[in-house]
Amino acid sequence: MKFQKNSWLFPLFILGFFLFFTTSTVAQISEEEGKEEATWIWYPGDFEIWLSNKMQVRRTEREAVFPPLWRYYSPFPLVTFQTEVDIPERDEVEIHTEGPFQLLVDGKQISGQPERITIEPGKHKISLKVYNQEFLPAIYIDGTYINSDESWIVTNEDKLWIDEAGNAQQSGTPWKPVGSWKFHSPNEKPSDFRLKTEPWTAENTEPVGEGELVDFGKETFGYIRVHGLKGEGQLSLYYGESREEALDSAHCETLDYIQFDGSQPSIYTHDESKAYRYVQVQADPTIEYDSISMLYEYLPLDYRGEFESSDELLNEIWDVSAYTMHLTSREFFIDGIKRDRWIWSGDAHQSYLMNYYLFFDESSVERTLLALRGKEPVTAHINTIMDYSLYWFVGIYDYYLYTGDTSFIETFYPRIKSLMEFVLGRRNEAGFLEPLEGDWVFIDWADGLPKTGEVSFEQMLLARSLEAMAVSAEIVGETEDQKRYEDLAGEMKNKLFDVFWDKEEQVMLHQREDGEMQDIVTRYANMFGIFFNYFDEKQKQSVKENVILNDDILQITTPYMRFYELEALCAMGEQEFVLDEIRDYWGGMLDLGATSFWEKYDPTEKGDAHLEMYGRPYGKSLCHAWGASPIYLFGKYYLGVQPTAPGYKEYTIEPNLGGLEWMEGKVPTPNGEVSVYANRNEIRVKSSEGNGILKFKSRRKPKTSEGEIRSMGDRVYELNIKPGKQYRISYKEVK
Amino acid sequence: MKFQKNSWLFPLFILGFFLFFTTSTVAQISEEEGKEEATWIWYPGDFEIWLSNKMQVRRTEREAVFPPLWRYYSPFPLVTFQTEVDIPERDEVEIHTEGPFQLLVDGKQISGQPERITIEPGKHKISLKVYNQEFLPAIYIDGTYINSDESWIVTNEDKLWIDEAGNAQQSGTPWKPVGSWKFHSPNEKPSDFRLKTEPWTAENTEPVGEGELVDFGKETFGYIRVHGLKGEGQLSLYYGESREEALDSAHCETLDYIQFDGSQPSIYTHDESKAYRYVQVQADPTIEYDSISMLYEYLPLDYRGEFESSDELLNEIWDVSAYTMHLTSREFFIDGIKRDRWIWSGDAHQSYLMNYYLFFDESSVERTLLALRGKEPVTAHINTIMDYSLYWFVGIYDYYLYTGDTSFIETFYPRIKSLMEFVLGRRNEAGFLEPLEGDWVFIDWADGLPKTGEVSFEQMLLARSLEAMAVSAEIVGETEDQKRYEDLAGEMKNKLFDVFWDKEEQVMLHQREDGEMQDIVTRYANMFGIFFNYFDEKQKQSVKENVILNDDILQITTPYMRFYELEALCAMGEQEFVLDEIRDYWGGMLDLGATSFWEKYDPTEKGDAHLEMYGRPYGKSLCHAWGASPIYLFGKYYLGVQPTAPGYKEYTIEPNLGGLEWMEGKVPTPNGEVSVYANRNEIRVKSSEGNGILKFKSRRKPKTSEGEIRSMGDRVYELNIKPGKQYRISYKEVK
Repeated sequence: MKFQKNSWLFPLFILGFFLFFTTSTVAQISEEEGKEEATWIWYPGDFEIWLSNKMQVRRTEREAVFPPLWRYYSPFPLVTFQTEVDIPERDEVEIHTEGPFQLLVDGKQISGQPERITIEPGKHKISLKVYNQEFLPAIYIDGTYINSDESWIVTNEDKLWIDEAGNAQQSGTPWKPVGSWKFHSPNEKPSDFRLKTEPWTAENTEPVGEGELVDFGKETFGYIRVHGLKGEGQLSLYYGESREEALDSAHCETLDYIQFDGSQPSIYTHDESKAYRYVQVQADPTIEYDSISMLYEYLPLDYRGEFESSDELLNEIWDVSAYTMHLTSREFFIDGIKRDRWIWSGDAHQSYLMNYYLFFDESSVERTLLALRGKEPVTAHINTIMDYSLYWFVGIYDYYLYTGDTSFIETFYPRIKSLMEFVLGRRNEAGFLEPLEGDWVFIDWADGLPKTGEVSFEQMLLARSLEAMAVSAEIVGETEDQKRYEDLAGEMKNKLFDVFWDKEEQVMLHQREDGEMQDIVTRYANMFGIFFNYFDEKQKQSVKENVILNDDILQITTPYMRFYELEALCAMGEQEFVLDEIRDYWGGMLDLGATSFWEKYDPTEKGDAHLEMYGRPYGKSLCHAWGASPIYLFGKYYLGVQPTAPGYKEYTIEPNLGGLEWMEGKVPTPNGEVSVYANRNEIRVKSSEGNGILKFKSRRKPKTSEGEIRSMGDRVYELNIKPGKQYRISYKEVK
Repeated sequence: MKFQKNSWLFPLFILGFFLFFTTSTVAQISEEEGKEEATWIWYPGDFEIWLSNKMQVRRTEREAVFPPLWRYYSPFPLVTFQTEVDIPERDEVEIHTEGPFQLLVDGKQISGQPERITIEPGKHKISLKVYNQEFLPAIYIDGTYINSDESWIVTNEDKLWIDEAGNAQQSGTPWKPVGSWKFHSPNEKPSDFRLKTEPWTAENTEPVGEGELVDFGKETFGYIRVHGLKGEGQLSLYYGESREEALDSAHCETLDYIQFDGSQPSIYTHDESKAYRYVQVQADPTIEYDSISMLYEYLPLDYRGEFESSDELLNEIWDVSAYTMHLTSREFFIDGIKRDRWIWSGDAHQSYLMNYYLFFDESSVERTLLALRGKEPVTAHINTIMDYSLYWFVGIYDYYLYTGDTSFIETFYPRIKSLMEFVLGRRNEAGFLEPLEGDWVFIDWADGLPKTGEVSFEQMLLARSLEAMAVSAEIVGETEDQKRYEDLAGEMKNKLFDVFWDKEEQVMLHQREDGEMQDIVTRYANMFGIFFNYFDEKQKQSVKENVILNDDILQITTPYMRFYELEALCAMGEQEFVLDEIRDYWGGMLDLGATSFWEKYDPTEKGDAHLEMYGRPYGKSLCHAWGASPIYLFGKYYLGVQPTAPGYKEYTIEPNLGGLEWMEGKVPTPNGEVSVYANRNEIRVKSSEGNGILKFKSRRKPKTSEGEIRSMGDRVYELNIKPGKQYRISYKEVK
């Protein structure tokens, strides 16, 4: 059979058309600046799916590929792009696509697959249906007036047929705004995407047997390069984040055996990039080369956040944290660069937060959220881990709070909602999340931590996730959903306290199993309750004393949960105590020669024990995103800058020296930054946007160069901060 | 973060493991013959998705690609294959994959990507995780004892992690039996699949201008081949199913402009296959060639059904029908070979039925059902057409009835069910299907046919679909589902008669719109009600007289609905009348020179009007699957063979000469055939399997060479037919 005009559909088509263009595209067309520059566009989220599939399967373990244990989704292989234009004069338009295409102008099919077309003045509807099963259907349309950009729409099922007269008929098409990134020239195809590289030379080399050990001076990531290469045979590369690992060819986590047949170029660059500081090189006697260097591979990002202080150790900790964060901010925010190279939602959640105080790169957050979420249908938790689904919602909430961007939530609300419906469908009869078959409960790496039954920590994350859902529903105008999620969030918080709050001890208990409350207290729910602001002041104080500062409660040994533990303490004003913790813990890694921060650090361990994990001598990642948390803490709790309304429309600055003589730094905002300097007698502040409130304590009445200081009582003062002005406040620190 | 052992999951894993192997794999392992031959295996349904995407986008219209208007799905790019073996001696096993892989033996990762491994005697679990975003993850494992075959299982999310000791941990994994087809050697990779070809020479050529018109003598499909080709420039090919089309270079539906730079081989085979009988060849003066031939491209299939009779015209009609059917039975059952080359569920439903009387190729039915269904989530009707979703369920029902195969339904029950839930979710408040935005109601090509509101035909298809669901649910042991679908089917049938049955006129009305019954009678629901057996005898007679044989009711002009109209008449014993219709209608096409049967034939049209459709002079397909229905009618209603229990375990033979002097033929069954010969005095029957009942009328008491004839009264007789025996019955035909 063949499609043909179905006259009854026409009124629906007209209606759909009307609704669409009154709500969405007309508004976008008015953004004239967007119409002038072309960029590659695709179905939203599909580039991220495609790239994350490709990236995560690049994990290797001693030459075996090691793909993730969770489900892979795929881009839609057949999509239709569309735009409506009204142009003042004839436009000559170039067409570039990834994949064969069908072009319709005003509903009429254009013969062949032209590289350019001429569009006459006036109103036109232009559609391209592109097929690409192997990579990603994408287009780049380049004219004077007609350009592929964010104003285009796209669908994975156009439901369009051509009637007897050759005219297009269509109804019920699920249009979406397109996705794009930074591919602004026709030759920069999305499927050719690679990270940037730059040449690095070795810092030192020393002989090892017939070969050598090459030291690049610090942790790095990239492609080994061999100079002056001649001959046939095998070159063996044994990588190490530590000297020990690179020297241990039998146990190092990554290695490459490269075969040469004599036809290779004299400067050979290996085609797989790895993480290492050291590489042991052993060549067959039939091979000669002059030297080894590398191509450092990285995502170009601006270091927009800054921090410096009177304490050189802290400054070094900030620098190494920033480098750790940069190494793990790649195609996506990944966990560790040596081993997994996968995207984990719990790890990524911390990367988002650190990113807001370092790069403020919205795109990296969006890419990572999209890669984690995948598409429909939802059949398992993100990364198969219950808490990791929940962090994803919290990440959405934070993304909106820091960036103020609503379009991401608008575009992806159906995916946000379907994941939440999956999560809600896994509650038990009591309405709590309890792991079903195939659900992994992670929480943290900690010996003997109970993870079965109803764990309070998971319920608390669910409550915050439901709050994030309510905010998302409000943004997209789904008022029924909003009400439902608000109610569910309220219920969940009530139940959390009804069931898990120990009224006698005034702490949150850890677990109920088979209806029996277990007499276990852990730090997790207790510390999250503080910075989620679920506890009142009295509860917070009790939790701080009885849990956080109580050494009898199971200790945290990962920087992952240290992040939240220190955040909870900072949120309660324990900045000075926390600085000491940071000096000890992160300073301890530096003392051991760290050039990036680790997956796990236990100060009580000795020697090579620091390199072990998962029962493997070099199993531990020595460059792990969650090791970089001082960036976040310094920005949010020492410089003290945080948004209080979406996108820094409103924000607070509460500088806290934590015992330092002075500190200064910058916190990035969507379109600028907040600069803060503070010593014990002076605070200086300047910002680019939004309405800020500087909050500080002073032992004497403070003075300002600009604006008016309000006294809030109890030695607390406030000053409104307007964009573009320099404020210089003299005060006297209250310790 | 990194995965690690989670001890609580272990009991669940053990349980899941136990359940799985007691229900499924142990049974399969006992099929020893299956273990001895290796074949390529993949995630079930994914090869079909991948191949159908590729095939359907090959549609072109005058050089523009023309992909389908519905959603494309994709294979899972990352899947894990697994088997459990118990081998008596050491096995050397070859590994072939499409895509990089990770190999685990007994939960331990094997280093690298070996081309062969040695497996020690005893019990082992072997897993391969394969990544292939571009094509299809697939494996071919070839040992003495260990071979990839139907006993393997596969999943798209293995949820497997390696604990500290290097052991695999896993729970909640959705395992499925693998898919396979006929790729039995390591070099026959699924992604290399091509149909077979054979060389054909032209029957005739004649000059056209500077070029020539090549006639291959009958409708064909394949690759044009140019012999003795020399020079640089363009060769233009204008294809035609008719002479007129090939000569009309400005309007022919398909064409190729091929550029040569002089480096081409002297025998050049074009890389795109097309449908045509004629091709007009025009070469630039700078190009020379000797002759044109073609490579006929086809799916190798055995003609297992046969039919011959005393009427040569009918024999020719059967032959041309069979050839039409073969031309449209390709990678999948498609509609027409010239234009769409897409898979349409309504058209395919008829192909399934014809196939059961010609090739009995189960695989083609399965492939087509899978390609049409796609995967999750369901977001639109199949082909976007409401009736086409419903035919799909009827196709499932017929598949089970004819083949008796339950494994297809067992494997794909979740997809069968989710499509039905989508359909049920689109009912209106009255519980009827009424098109929502984006739903196309097709029914038939017929001028002025009302398709809005509640159409009785759609509700009748839904009732039968619900019956198919109940059968499917029973097969997989989902008793709650079975009950629910049985109840829904019963309700739907009751409502159908309550609302649409005109008690006065004793016919089924066509439509209710906005609660108002429309005074319209059409043939559709009325004829389906007969062979669905939804009418009682009195209703059938009334419908036959007042609708089917009533020329005032909107006439049918497509072979598509002629199929069902003639089936309804045959089901009521009007075989003689129907033979005349066939002689007229199909004979009419032969008179006009048809070498395959058409998409549409209106005997009242003249000359070139027969070639027009969709407002295009050669828009009509002259080789359309639905034109081949005599195959089905002859087998089912003249030879009279049809299954009455799944897979021909039971069946009936009711020969009906319909006025012929004699006829003979074969109807294929799963493992053999039923042979029937009949003239006015003798019936001969032989079968290979199952319990048959021969039913016939005789004016005198019949005699048989074998078995005992039962008299059923009213001159009706029955004889049980056992496999392998020849029955010769003498009787006297009742006309």
